[in-house]
Amino acid sequence: MASRAASLVRPLVRNLHGYTPGEQPRVKGLIKLNTNENPYPPSPKVLAATRAAVDGRLRLYPNPTADALRTRLARLHRCAVENLIIGNGSDELLALAIRAFVEPADSTAGRRDRSRATVQYFWPSYSLYPVLAGIHGAHTAPFALGPDFALPNVRELRRRRWDFHAALTLVTTPNAPSGRGYATSDLDALCRATRGVVLLDEAYVDFARENALGLALRHPHVLVSRTFSKAYSLCAQRVGYLVGHPDLIAALHTIRDSYNVNGLGQAAALATLADLPHYRRNFRRLLATRERLRRELTGLGWGVLPSETNFLLARPPGPPAEQWLERLRASKILVRWFRSPEVSAYLRITVGTDAEADALLKAVRKIHPLA
Amino acid sequence: MASRAASLVRPLVRNLHGYTPGEQPRVKGLIKLNTNENPYPPSPKVLAATRAAVDGRLRLYPNPTADALRTRLARLHRCAVENLIIGNGSDELLALAIRAFVEPADSTAGRRDRSRATVQYFWPSYSLYPVLAGIHGAHTAPFALGPDFALPNVRELRRRRWDFHAALTLVTTPNAPSGRGYATSDLDALCRATRGVVLLDEAYVDFARENALGLALRHPHVLVSRTFSKAYSLCAQRVGYLVGHPDLIAALHTIRDSYNVNGLGQAAALATLADLPHYRRNFRRLLATRERLRRELTGLGWGVLPSETNFLLARPPGPPAEQWLERLRASKILVRWFRSPEVSAYLRITVGTDAEADALLKAVRKIHPLA
Repeated sequence: MASRAASLVRPLVRNLHGYTPGEQPRVKGLIKLNTNENPYPPSPKVLAATRAAVDGRLRLYPNPTADALRTRLARLHRCAVENLIIGNGSDELLALAIRAFVEPADSTAGRRDRSRATVQYFWPSYSLYPVLAGIHGAHTAPFALGPDFALPNVRELRRRRWDFHAALTLVTTPNAPSGRGYATSDLDALCRATRGVVLLDEAYVDFARENALGLALRHPHVLVSRTFSKAYSLCAQRVGYLVGHPDLIAALHTIRDSYNVNGLGQAAALATLADLPHYRRNFRRLLATRERLRRELTGLGWGVLPSETNFLLARPPGPPAEQWLERLRASKILVRWFRSPEVSAYLRITVGTDAEADALLKAVRKIHPLA
Repeated sequence: MASRAASLVRPLVRNLHGYTPGEQPRVKGLIKLNTNENPYPPSPKVLAATRAAVDGRLRLYPNPTADALRTRLARLHRCAVENLIIGNGSDELLALAIRAFVEPADSTAGRRDRSRATVQYFWPSYSLYPVLAGIHGAHTAPFALGPDFALPNVRELRRRRWDFHAALTLVTTPNAPSGRGYATSDLDALCRATRGVVLLDEAYVDFARENALGLALRHPHVLVSRTFSKAYSLCAQRVGYLVGHPDLIAALHTIRDSYNVNGLGQAAALATLADLPHYRRNFRRLLATRERLRRELTGLGWGVLPSETNFLLARPPGPPAEQWLERLRASKILVRWFRSPEVSAYLRITVGTDAEADALLKAVRKIHPLA
């Protein structure tokens, strides 16, 4: 890049590689099992409430602090409104947490200072973390998970030089892309041992056996992130939230955009919280499909990891995973493959409806029939 | 702040004072002339299109680059899709521009380096600019406008030590809170003389005589920002955009959140562009109300500046402006008062409907009748 315009961009930004989101293709009839969206639409009540909010009020700024939504969430989680911040999806909140708690690397020197400029995370986990750290100019400290993606215990963390003082540690729990769930007691031990801020990213927690929200209310340095995108079928609306100590939450409020959450998103999320039994029925359906899909793929020679999410990480038999990706795409089924060596032998398959699972299994059988 | 949680917040962030957005009260019957919202609702076609988009597709991620909207805007502005980025309101784009083009102050030293870490803007203008610069840890360089809020010419800029190399210069045009419009030829001269990135913030341009969008397509270092909030009655939806050189735009894409613009906001903005004549009729109505309000307030002893926006900056007679604010509020009319000394003698009054203007004039006459 040699143009005058390019020379006006910060060198840090000029050298970044952006995040690659999963494809959102517009091909008709494609079965989309690549971005972990919920296969079921929002509940009829949520759609009705959102439609009813589409009127002249769109001309007005939305509530800047999403007060009605925070009040309702505070009741749900038995915490104070001050324990909550709503974001333009939880992605915004992850970026804000890095900017609030982590120094840019330039401004630091020395070992302890390095920790103040470090974003730490297990690897593999959400591939956005290193991208966000890079944008902020922070150091990244990936900590490799074992082949079973289990949470390392504190002794292992110590032995393998976990940075207990990292300014921010991001933990995807349940883990993505493996789908593995983590016990709250193990997360608690990790949080207790770590001195910097720990953000437990519970994007998939509604599909799991346990959740760790209580840790954010018990420890002053722990945040839990949630989203309405996946479990609550509102990806398009961009609503996520963080729970944590009021001083951490206040810092995030200070640096967020004034009107960061759109009005219809707030309305849809609020209506969702008034119709939770509908969504719990969805979760049960989805978990049944997930377990059936796991069983059937296993029967077809796939190595499928146990999952506490709405997706499966599965190692196909025969041809390499990347070839499977292309062959499934040719059958109009889109799944996700990651180039990262720890998982490149796997495909990540979103659990869809039963009909979508059937279509996937049919395509799989056609591509590589077991003898 | 002495808590453990507070100590985990970056010192930079701990010492910030956040932006204070105008009030969004929920009092019934209040006439809201304080945040420059359009008094007219979105067009019936826009409401219908938005309602029609409220369906099962909410479960899917929105288009990450708002391609349909950018394609339509490219046609409108006769530019390429690569000249465009859509934001979660133009506020998000202002923050992104600071992060993409301005170094944090810590990492620089020396005079030329100081410019690389400087956000420059006229004062008074949009009070968010220094807040955003503060969040990034950048230097701020406010450049005082004269009492008529005119754009200084290049000779005056030179004489008064304008930073021609400031990494980013933000120009509200037409100006807020004064309402003063600027000639494109004068803006062009300012842009030509300035070496850093110049962002022309045209939030109110649909109410002005001229616009400077062409400068963003002619100069590699000029960006123009637009929003659907005010002129297009979509504050709640959070959709703004920037036009500029593809290299600047690409840098902003690299550092934005992957899905920064919600799906229904994209749908509403797209429908708006298909119904522009409706909005142009609105603009004419609003301008007629603005000129009538200006005339009548002037007749009541107010000093009203000429406006090319949807608001008036007006100096009330008699009691201080801050007292007027409270007395109008007691009459259920909300306007805006800024503590900043350059404008503290004024009230900023959003131009509402004719009925709202009548209510304001009635209250004004009651509070301070001219002899």
